Amino acid sequence: MSKPVIATIIGDPAGIGPEVVVKALATGKPYEISRPVLIGCTEAVEQALEITGASFKVNKVTEIDGVGENPGEIDVYDTGRLDPNAYELGVESAACGKATADWLKEGEELALAGKVDAVIMAPINTGSMKMANVLDQIIPPEPGSTYLTLLNGPLRVVHLTDHMPLKDVSGLITKELVHGAIKLIHDSFTAWGTANPKIGVSGFNCHAMGEEDATEIVPAVEQAKAEGINVEGPVAPDTVFRRCVDAQYDVVLCMYHDQGHIALKTWKFSGNCAMTLGLPYLSLSVAHGTAFDIVGKNIADPDMILNSMLQAASFSAGTGFIKQAA
Amino acid sequence: MSKPVIATIIGDPAGIGPEVVVKALATGKPYEISRPVLIGCTEAVEQALEITGASFKVNKVTEIDGVGENPGEIDVYDTGRLDPNAYELGVESAACGKATADWLKEGEELALAGKVDAVIMAPINTGSMKMANVLDQIIPPEPGSTYLTLLNGPLRVVHLTDHMPLKDVSGLITKELVHGAIKLIHDSFTAWGTANPKIGVSGFNCHAMGEEDATEIVPAVEQAKAEGINVEGPVAPDTVFRRCVDAQYDVVLCMYHDQGHIALKTWKFSGNCAMTLGLPYLSLSVAHGTAFDIVGKNIADPDMILNSMLQAASFSAGTGFIKQAA
Repeated sequence: MSKPVIATIIGDPAGIGPEVVVKALATGKPYEISRPVLIGCTEAVEQALEITGASFKVNKVTEIDGVGENPGEIDVYDTGRLDPNAYELGVESAACGKATADWLKEGEELALAGKVDAVIMAPINTGSMKMANVLDQIIPPEPGSTYLTLLNGPLRVVHLTDHMPLKDVSGLITKELVHGAIKLIHDSFTAWGTANPKIGVSGFNCHAMGEEDATEIVPAVEQAKAEGINVEGPVAPDTVFRRCVDAQYDVVLCMYHDQGHIALKTWKFSGNCAMTLGLPYLSLSVAHGTAFDIVGKNIADPDMILNSMLQAASFSAGTGFIKQAA
Repeated sequence: MSKPVIATIIGDPAGIGPEVVVKALATGKPYEISRPVLIGCTEAVEQALEITGASFKVNKVTEIDGVGENPGEIDVYDTGRLDPNAYELGVESAACGKATADWLKEGEELALAGKVDAVIMAPINTGSMKMANVLDQIIPPEPGSTYLTLLNGPLRVVHLTDHMPLKDVSGLITKELVHGAIKLIHDSFTAWGTANPKIGVSGFNCHAMGEEDATEIVPAVEQAKAEGINVEGPVAPDTVFRRCVDAQYDVVLCMYHDQGHIALKTWKFSGNCAMTLGLPYLSLSVAHGTAFDIVGKNIADPDMILNSMLQAASFSAGTGFIKQAA
């Protein structure tokens, strides 16, 4: 069986993306279980090698065939979207914003064409994308199409809804939406290598004893159970995440942004990687930003992007959750 | 300076309350910094001594003067509210429910009369209280009068609202309510021994960037700052609790039940004690229940009730937060 091809977009070239990407590759681990390829600007990758002191031969490629075979080499899928003289480290620019948007599109096209098995996004900069008028390309879609998913060791959380006024969440929670998310989680994680994944569904109200819990979440869970899905809920929101940490669940479906984020960030915040569940291809990213304040200093932590690369490779190969590097 | 008198209600006598109370006293620690007295049924305390093997002389008292002076003795304020033959361990009963309600009232009266410095409540049983038709006596009052406060090591959280439909919380968050809670926290914790306590106020919406955050929480925090209170906020809900764990705040004011509870229970759940902030006297309890399934087995963990006793003593003496025993 051939190794999966994992494409990592270098992110905004003025940020820490290129640095952490080459540091992650320099561990050698991505080459052991995948064929890595970067999407971005060759010169930005070479600059990151200078910053980090990592030693690689850099190949500029415009085809995916044959990439990522040699651990001593970095293949950069570079179609000339960025003038390497048009930006400087740590500074927002329309040039970087435009290039980032172009690379995201290229990643999506390669994934949809089946040329890469997964796409990983290093940190982008919304300021730069705003300057380039391309920010609307990454505005998250309506609830019910894709779901923000954060993986942090044993604590894995899918968010039914994301950035929206908390008072409006209640009106969005329907049996259909909850059931669809449960089924998507079951199907996705099964395909990625976790047999019969145990899903804990958080309630919406405290103790899972409110109106939305009874009228929408209960019937959604019952329907999923009747379909043979290994699911429990609605579980009290203040215990469901601890139960997941304690391995009673493989993954939690939560109802709103802060339910999951408070649990994840208060428990521990390292080794995290982010996924967008519900796209027709495997899409991962990191939970940190471009960190302009430390760019170029070789102090940025590559653990998150490394975990994303390794998790993407494992999911693509159908071998499930990785034990995180961090 | 004399030691504070700390009254602990034994809780529902059919539950683990009496057991954990005598085990906590048997550590000797409450006697070092306070004069402990129990409120309840002398025979229930004697039974708990048999179960736990703790060795104490038990004194039935009906006056508070002179209690808690001798580490080898337990003084029980017992006005004959419970027939010791009217219940059995692990079984709900109207007799226990009625007695529990009576003891709560006695504790309040003693505190309001200045005879005890703090009242601690061991676990009560709402089933028993329902059978005795006294449950309405412990229904929490309207938001804005008292605030559920949980202390768990460095993570200390005051809840602006408690049990209510999440969709209704938005309508309750007003500048006045938030400002009043901040001021109460400042005044209370200052009086209890934490000079200039640093208060982190959680936002309501994700990233603290919603309507309620801007229109109600921001002006409340600004007003408190103008009054010289050491307060920050609204802080993103998914970072404020971690910051408190990391000692950037002494205490967090959160907006709704699950904000605080998800953080507390996912982070770590031990050594917790609960307080009701806003009463005219110091009132603490524990975060666990009567645990009928393990009553009489001498396996119930006394750490929470012990922490409550020690924390109550320290607050009464004006010496601030304790380092928790657990």
